[in-house]
Amino acid sequence: MSHLSTAAQHFQESAIRRTSMLGAAVPGLISLAAGYPSPDVFPWDDLASITAELLAKRDGNTLQYGATRGYRPLIEQLIAKTLTDRGITATFEDMIITTGSQQGLDLVGRVLIDPGDVILVELPTYSGAIAAFHNLQGQFAGVPQDAEGMDLAALDAAIARLKAEGKTAKFIYVTPNFQNPAGLLMSRARRLALLDVARRHDLLILEDDPYGPIYFEDVTTAADTRPIKADDTDDRVIYLGSFSKVLVPGLRVAWLVAPREIAQKIELAKQATDICSSVFDQRIVHGAMDRGVVDRIAPGLRAHYQAKRRVMEQSLQTSLAGRVKWTSPRGGFFLWIELPEGVDDRELFDRALKEKVSFVLGSSFFVDGGGHRFARLSFSGITHEQIAEGITRLAAAISRH
Amino acid sequence: MSHLSTAAQHFQESAIRRTSMLGAAVPGLISLAAGYPSPDVFPWDDLASITAELLAKRDGNTLQYGATRGYRPLIEQLIAKTLTDRGITATFEDMIITTGSQQGLDLVGRVLIDPGDVILVELPTYSGAIAAFHNLQGQFAGVPQDAEGMDLAALDAAIARLKAEGKTAKFIYVTPNFQNPAGLLMSRARRLALLDVARRHDLLILEDDPYGPIYFEDVTTAADTRPIKADDTDDRVIYLGSFSKVLVPGLRVAWLVAPREIAQKIELAKQATDICSSVFDQRIVHGAMDRGVVDRIAPGLRAHYQAKRRVMEQSLQTSLAGRVKWTSPRGGFFLWIELPEGVDDRELFDRALKEKVSFVLGSSFFVDGGGHRFARLSFSGITHEQIAEGITRLAAAISRH
Repeated sequence: MSHLSTAAQHFQESAIRRTSMLGAAVPGLISLAAGYPSPDVFPWDDLASITAELLAKRDGNTLQYGATRGYRPLIEQLIAKTLTDRGITATFEDMIITTGSQQGLDLVGRVLIDPGDVILVELPTYSGAIAAFHNLQGQFAGVPQDAEGMDLAALDAAIARLKAEGKTAKFIYVTPNFQNPAGLLMSRARRLALLDVARRHDLLILEDDPYGPIYFEDVTTAADTRPIKADDTDDRVIYLGSFSKVLVPGLRVAWLVAPREIAQKIELAKQATDICSSVFDQRIVHGAMDRGVVDRIAPGLRAHYQAKRRVMEQSLQTSLAGRVKWTSPRGGFFLWIELPEGVDDRELFDRALKEKVSFVLGSSFFVDGGGHRFARLSFSGITHEQIAEGITRLAAAISRH
Repeated sequence: MSHLSTAAQHFQESAIRRTSMLGAAVPGLISLAAGYPSPDVFPWDDLASITAELLAKRDGNTLQYGATRGYRPLIEQLIAKTLTDRGITATFEDMIITTGSQQGLDLVGRVLIDPGDVILVELPTYSGAIAAFHNLQGQFAGVPQDAEGMDLAALDAAIARLKAEGKTAKFIYVTPNFQNPAGLLMSRARRLALLDVARRHDLLILEDDPYGPIYFEDVTTAADTRPIKADDTDDRVIYLGSFSKVLVPGLRVAWLVAPREIAQKIELAKQATDICSSVFDQRIVHGAMDRGVVDRIAPGLRAHYQAKRRVMEQSLQTSLAGRVKWTSPRGGFFLWIELPEGVDDRELFDRALKEKVSFVLGSSFFVDGGGHRFARLSFSGITHEQIAEGITRLAAAISRH
């Protein structure tokens, strides 16, 4: 295919999507792979009445092209409510509505990354971010994490190493709240120290926070999820938020807050990328915010996913105690397990499919070729029974080793 | 802003969007700029009942993440119905649902364009395509048009010139049906001859066709809009279709048909760009296809826009006969006028704003720095009265010259 761009010749398939595809071919499969929200907690009645009301009004703008930045009343609600709740101060000019946070990752990448630029990421990190930056011909430097988050001595060393190699470290990508995949919650001290490192090296931070509101009330509080952006006194943090996990993902509505100049560039990039996100979707989400639906359902979501996490941990205790290791997540959708010595994620995946269970390969989340001793297990979108049965099957697959 | 990518340092604002912004500050302005479909022809009742039914079913998949390629039943309907009607044969593997056709332009660009690659475009051409390819650091070679479409001798000469300069001509971008902005309908003979040129030089063709179904029955027929893709015997045409003009643009749903290998690359690009287009929007559009809404409203749309075109032409005859020139469009949303000798589009725009009317600068559609003797006037989204009054005001602005 001589016509392809250099970037396209090296596009990589999303590991999560490929896993799903393989799984789809197995009848009766229980997927611990897909990190889907549970439709059991979708606010169906609210969405039905919001939608009916919107269409009954026959306001032409509801179904017309909209502003590239997004539906202004939605942005204003986000500023007044969501951002205020999270300790973030922003104005209209700092914000962009995106077609899901994946678009936020892509647009930020387009505005910042030149081919060969290096992005500093956690080991492991979100595979969708790897794909977005990789497709823009970015490169990666992985930084290990401890229980409090990114290891800042290692970060410093990585930046120094890049400098010595003549490479450009472009920004630091982190997911401080219930990291996908590791489920880690970065400590407040670490967040502030990370800001200091970024300042020292004049680096931007890209903070991705789709899971912040899904904290587990048995072990943590909203205060623990305070974004780095809330303490960003010198405008170097780009913050991504989303409705996918706190409302529904099938309406593609997310948002970002960025330093104004960068937000302007992102707006220009978005104009040429999809003109605007779905106006109808944005107005539905606005309706859900306006009626207090998002706030009202939040405690239920937290309880829902917390209960599922407990079932998964109990199942792991029952079937795999002492053989796999994990850190109990304090929020989010995932358990990140370390496999027994000698078990490789790829080989285990093949055996797991035979047992009719799937997961995401740990190595999908590593930018350094490692991670083959890990697996990401999602408890979010399936029932308690499926979680328990899935772990039983996974244990069988591991035992066959 | 030392952090910006090379591409972002050169992003350009969409001329149409900038024009709208300037216009928005003028109270009582009549906009002949925005090429919006008319909300008067949106099928409100159908969309309300489709949406209500979708949400009443409580199928979790309606509001869940979806496949990157798109909602399969929608793709199957497009293949069975729309593509068949237009003479195009395609399979599921050739198709991608996009977040509007603007995303199609961007994704095709990402898969094909390396910085410095040259795209061959019509003079004038759609400004959104210019923006998408420009943001990917593509360059342009403009090819003049005559009444039948792109001048193929000039195209051949342009390709030869690029070769001599050591540049890579990457693909030919055309909008054969009621070109935005010029309103031209490319003749069938020219379409077939264009395919021959592309074959001879082994170039891909990107055929953008949002307006095909909006042909004016007083002067043309569906047969005249037969896409180039329908005669693409050696798989070198990428075809973009959209629901924005034939249903509503506020649901961001469009689609493309591409050679399979390119479609696969586009799918990978899209995975990392927005994961999937709005699943809810796709299902609503599927419902509208399934119930025959799109077909049912099409004759009404054609009559609606045809009547508006007539009003605009009559107003031009009344106020500006002999001073501006235009070719009567046989479809689409626009009249493309040549301004009187000595009138510059930028100066006229400033005067027009004082008369409370706006249009899009002709030069926005030219990649060669030219076009200042032209203006694009849209008749699609405003009333007959507004069209007549808008042209009266425009005539006043021209007279002040």
